[in-house]
Amino acid sequence: MTSDENLAAVVSTTQGDYRVIVGRGVINDIGAEMTAAGLSGRAFLIADVSMFPTAVHRAHEALERGGFVTNVMTMELSERVKNMETVLEIYKWLAGHRAERIDTIVVMGGGVAGDLVGFVAATWLRGVAVVQVPTSLAAMVDASIGGKVAINLPEGKNLVGAFHQPKLVLQDVAHLATLPEREMAGGFAEAIKHGLILDPGLLDTFERQAAELQSLDGDLPVRTIRRSVQIKAEVVSADEFERGDVRLLLNYGHTIGHAIENVSGYGKLLHGEAVAVGMMAAAGIARRLGMIDEELVNRQRNVLQQYNLPVTVSGVTTDELIAATKTDKKSRGGKVKWVLLEGPGKAVTRSDVPEAVVREAVDEVIVPNEQTGT
Amino acid sequence: MTSDENLAAVVSTTQGDYRVIVGRGVINDIGAEMTAAGLSGRAFLIADVSMFPTAVHRAHEALERGGFVTNVMTMELSERVKNMETVLEIYKWLAGHRAERIDTIVVMGGGVAGDLVGFVAATWLRGVAVVQVPTSLAAMVDASIGGKVAINLPEGKNLVGAFHQPKLVLQDVAHLATLPEREMAGGFAEAIKHGLILDPGLLDTFERQAAELQSLDGDLPVRTIRRSVQIKAEVVSADEFERGDVRLLLNYGHTIGHAIENVSGYGKLLHGEAVAVGMMAAAGIARRLGMIDEELVNRQRNVLQQYNLPVTVSGVTTDELIAATKTDKKSRGGKVKWVLLEGPGKAVTRSDVPEAVVREAVDEVIVPNEQTGT
Repeated sequence: MTSDENLAAVVSTTQGDYRVIVGRGVINDIGAEMTAAGLSGRAFLIADVSMFPTAVHRAHEALERGGFVTNVMTMELSERVKNMETVLEIYKWLAGHRAERIDTIVVMGGGVAGDLVGFVAATWLRGVAVVQVPTSLAAMVDASIGGKVAINLPEGKNLVGAFHQPKLVLQDVAHLATLPEREMAGGFAEAIKHGLILDPGLLDTFERQAAELQSLDGDLPVRTIRRSVQIKAEVVSADEFERGDVRLLLNYGHTIGHAIENVSGYGKLLHGEAVAVGMMAAAGIARRLGMIDEELVNRQRNVLQQYNLPVTVSGVTTDELIAATKTDKKSRGGKVKWVLLEGPGKAVTRSDVPEAVVREAVDEVIVPNEQTGT
Repeated sequence: MTSDENLAAVVSTTQGDYRVIVGRGVINDIGAEMTAAGLSGRAFLIADVSMFPTAVHRAHEALERGGFVTNVMTMELSERVKNMETVLEIYKWLAGHRAERIDTIVVMGGGVAGDLVGFVAATWLRGVAVVQVPTSLAAMVDASIGGKVAINLPEGKNLVGAFHQPKLVLQDVAHLATLPEREMAGGFAEAIKHGLILDPGLLDTFERQAAELQSLDGDLPVRTIRRSVQIKAEVVSADEFERGDVRLLLNYGHTIGHAIENVSGYGKLLHGEAVAVGMMAAAGIARRLGMIDEELVNRQRNVLQQYNLPVTVSGVTTDELIAATKTDKKSRGGKVKWVLLEGPGKAVTRSDVPEAVVREAVDEVIVPNEQTGT
């Protein structure tokens, strides 16, 4: 396969344009793609320890074959260690190898890996090139594109970070073969979200071909990931710094989703699972405001359930979730900006949602313990 | 005074354009200037503990008068604490006050303060607005303009940082009245450097009016700082990320200057003092390569001495200094790019300087202990 067949999108940013490659076995092209992206120097490959050693080895070989002298480190890159201590550990490794401004950091792993190592790349020697090699579905369709990198502080998640665009995003669908089922579902939540907010055709595909998509076999899953990647790439190109409302649309389901993660403790629900419940709450708000009808709420519920995603949550209260929305990082002057559907594939932002409406919609997605359903 | 009288330069960058204001008493205009720069939200004023409390108080009052609800913290912001620990302390303070994306960080102090707090602003919530209020001459004519921010690691100086342009640079010449004499001289070294590399007229002014400039009285010092600021602003606008050779010209005297700081230990010589010696070594190289004549070397020595700057160093060896140049952060593939004069107000970069020539020129600026002279 040539890489142009696999080119899903070109992201256009103030830090430069870059290609997003999506295909099977494309990891073998990484050296050539990096050269085409204008990169030279050495490569510093940092891989999550949960990756299969053979996958890391294949990436290493492909880099060397492409002419990049490569140093490799595998380490834990999980939410638990997404902090400054881990960042300092990676700095130390780079310093030990005298990594220079012309060198490139390549990160291989899920969304947390990309966030954490991306932050290192944003700040090492005032910023060096980074290549994102996302290996989870959620990271592929969402986090790896757009340059948002961050780490957590004891005071909150993602409080420290940067906008540091990659020079290349390389997504090998073969990496998904070993992804746990729940993580796969979490990734589908973000991809389905792209359909719900911006692309009715993509939503249709998710509804009609759920089995084929979840099998990961054949061409359809690859093409569908590419389409989801394109939507993210268009949004980022239009609103790189989330200054307008365009990029904020990607936040659909995230206000209540983040609140659920925050209140129930991170790790109980996967991020994508919390977002699925959050999208149901947002749909409830939109229906109450007369923006959408019951039918679209049901369509959304059905498609999420087809991908084994939860549509309700237990063990939290409405008061807790509403309080948590008010401390969200995206709030401005304490005010919540909601992303709500107006129709299938069409979302808008609204700052004027009465709290009573939010309360009713949140009530609706909370069920007593032990009844959380998919 | 209106601020347009005091407008020294507009810096043009991919992160936006910003004004550099230079004048006496301009701190009183900070609120209006920030509003004109499009800033709103709250202000978080972080001042070096060595500032006079009255100066910090005046800034605080001016911010509040300009409509900015302001939180103030004074803390040590010295080279000794230019590290991640201090950064984490400031993050904690910002988190405690729930600083949001629309808020602005205002930093008041010398170059280290601007570097350190600028790095915090670059990374807090993926980057918030920062206003630089440099209070040392070196920070005014150099570090406060151009968005370079950084902190040190145990493994080396400025290894971690970002390019984070300020939204406004406000330089109140009144702050210089309390600056220690040696620090003042260090600042003149950077300003004289601007004349040497890019502006023969500015060099003339420094030579002919040394007494008036050093008195800080009258209009000439203010106009001369503005001219030096303009040069820095033009260089940054032309080569924001130091990708070409333009911004590298500002590095004149810094290759050996950094080596001296590195070998003799930071703090023994001030940065500007080390740069003065470094410029003498660079002049020695250029003379040996036939690029300039002995007369320009003497002119440079004389002007530096007029401002009580050292032109030789003791307690270090040529071997140590040459070894240190090879590990400089700006080296690429281990190769040193020298900034050398071709004439008064004219500098170029050269990568082909034979080590024997460097060795001779460095020998010339080293004197036995206890004979270091100005």
